[in-house]
Amino acid sequence: MALNVTVVGVGLVGEAIVSCLKQRNFPCNWPPRVAATRERPETLAGEKMLVQETSAEVFQGADLVLFAGQEGAKGASVTWRETAEKAGAWCIDNGRDFRLADDVPLVVPEVNADAIGETTRFIASPNCSTIQLVVALAPLHREARLTRIIAATYQATSGWGMKGPQELRKQTPGALENQTDIEFDPGVFARPIAFNCIPHIDRFVDADYTREEWKMVHETRKILGDARVRISATAVRVPVFVGHGEAVWIETEKKLSADAAREILRGAPGVVVIDEPDGEGMRTYPTQLDLVNPEYAGMTLVGRIREDTSCAGGLAMYIVADNIRKGAALNVVQVAEILLQRGHLKA
Amino acid sequence: MALNVTVVGVGLVGEAIVSCLKQRNFPCNWPPRVAATRERPETLAGEKMLVQETSAEVFQGADLVLFAGQEGAKGASVTWRETAEKAGAWCIDNGRDFRLADDVPLVVPEVNADAIGETTRFIASPNCSTIQLVVALAPLHREARLTRIIAATYQATSGWGMKGPQELRKQTPGALENQTDIEFDPGVFARPIAFNCIPHIDRFVDADYTREEWKMVHETRKILGDARVRISATAVRVPVFVGHGEAVWIETEKKLSADAAREILRGAPGVVVIDEPDGEGMRTYPTQLDLVNPEYAGMTLVGRIREDTSCAGGLAMYIVADNIRKGAALNVVQVAEILLQRGHLKA
Repeated sequence: MALNVTVVGVGLVGEAIVSCLKQRNFPCNWPPRVAATRERPETLAGEKMLVQETSAEVFQGADLVLFAGQEGAKGASVTWRETAEKAGAWCIDNGRDFRLADDVPLVVPEVNADAIGETTRFIASPNCSTIQLVVALAPLHREARLTRIIAATYQATSGWGMKGPQELRKQTPGALENQTDIEFDPGVFARPIAFNCIPHIDRFVDADYTREEWKMVHETRKILGDARVRISATAVRVPVFVGHGEAVWIETEKKLSADAAREILRGAPGVVVIDEPDGEGMRTYPTQLDLVNPEYAGMTLVGRIREDTSCAGGLAMYIVADNIRKGAALNVVQVAEILLQRGHLKA
Repeated sequence: MALNVTVVGVGLVGEAIVSCLKQRNFPCNWPPRVAATRERPETLAGEKMLVQETSAEVFQGADLVLFAGQEGAKGASVTWRETAEKAGAWCIDNGRDFRLADDVPLVVPEVNADAIGETTRFIASPNCSTIQLVVALAPLHREARLTRIIAATYQATSGWGMKGPQELRKQTPGALENQTDIEFDPGVFARPIAFNCIPHIDRFVDADYTREEWKMVHETRKILGDARVRISATAVRVPVFVGHGEAVWIETEKKLSADAAREILRGAPGVVVIDEPDGEGMRTYPTQLDLVNPEYAGMTLVGRIREDTSCAGGLAMYIVADNIRKGAALNVVQVAEILLQRGHLKA
């Protein structure tokens, strides 16, 4: 018996969730029910589908609800979680609203599938920049206990949603003609993004850090299950369509050599190490554009693994993943697959 | 009496040196002598000039020689330093070959003009990513002694020289059409640079760090005059034409609050602090494209100054400067101006 799945939201992530369900042959009635703020036809996963207006009706009979929509400043889950739960559905939420709630597991399947207990049917999926960070760092944390993480990010415009890449695409031809006199009509980004980097993602909140930066602090601690890990991040938007890069430094309680870290990561779920000598004066390393390689689909790529020249026992590395797939849609679907494996959902 | 100046090299930096000499009314006979590997006409500082082939002749009678050229893998200074010095000229070298030599001062005028002694007539100008780092950090080092620096860079394609921005410009239209199937003919960058970030600048050398990263370690220590400062950098090329960004974390011996650091930097030579509240949830901060603002010409812009949430007493910040001007040509001309002020050169 196939499951009834409802996807709420058809932005970049909602769209990618529908594609992931199809690509991974998720055992659901097809097409899934798809809902958004207004009814409209959409092509999703290569098929014409009718998107319904979100109402109590779209949750009736649902076994699984995947939230990936916004309603104003809040995630659709804020409005519809209760309705979905009352309808008897398991819920997985890509939004930020419940991620830090004590009774909501925040799950990256490669890292903490065990956080899914018996007491809740509502699970949150972390922020994109956090997911790739913990996929790469959790195996090292288990081995050597991380005490400190510093991360500078190189985040794609698609992290904003559909309008991010559109803005980059729109600004690029003019900026290519004339870099010094850009006509700038602020859209989704506060500054021009074509041929520029913007050290600002989401609102500025406490201590002059942005919300994006705080997400990396609090969500990482929750997923690693260790509130003692000290974390600082600088989140920077770069003129890239898809894929986040992260330059990361870690300190550990137990000393870990670069070789040992590479070895651990080579055996880690969801990780591909790209960090080999490649001729005189050259090594391999991952970049965002490598994510189009089907071999790396859904994987977190790690390279530039080396000892920290500023801290005995510390390590530096560079981490790349697809912010829309592994950083959002795929992670949501992978959590759903865990629910199947554990028998919480019965197809 | 105006000085005889010879500029060796007419790449991006050589060109910018000639422009800086003109803009800053440097007291030299005009046009300066300009030399490169082959004779050719060039438009420099808006004027047609004949570039001479570099030979002993171009150094005859020179009071000041500014080196900004490459001859294969080496800087032109490797071949011509002795000739220039024998001709009686003071030399300032933008190349990397002599920067770490014990008898060569490595000078950023805002930081260590005093390193110019009486014993040498040959002065080196640091690497671009180092210059902006020390302009911003030296005032904090003086106040609180830095013990550790971590830097992740966002470096413009022009750091490679003329062909860097050309490659970005050439790849962009095709990549804008089709990001997933980029025809990639490796040019100056080992990977596609359009809509991508490449965590690799210059050759890989010791400990799997790149030469660019080691430059930031050794040159920064030399300029700060403190070999105890521990430094680690990850240097990343981003699809930007001009201007380097740097996400930086520092630790200091004496505790420094973010407010105190902002205050020190507001009074620091060559620094503009862009770090103010700007309405609900927003702050000002610098980006590479801000460098086109004439108000910021030659300045190092610092923002995102805040306490490090991963280290009590540590600070994080974001530093931006023009890699061709302050990071190279302007710094060279500013060193020449110091030679005038100190009477080493008499115009």
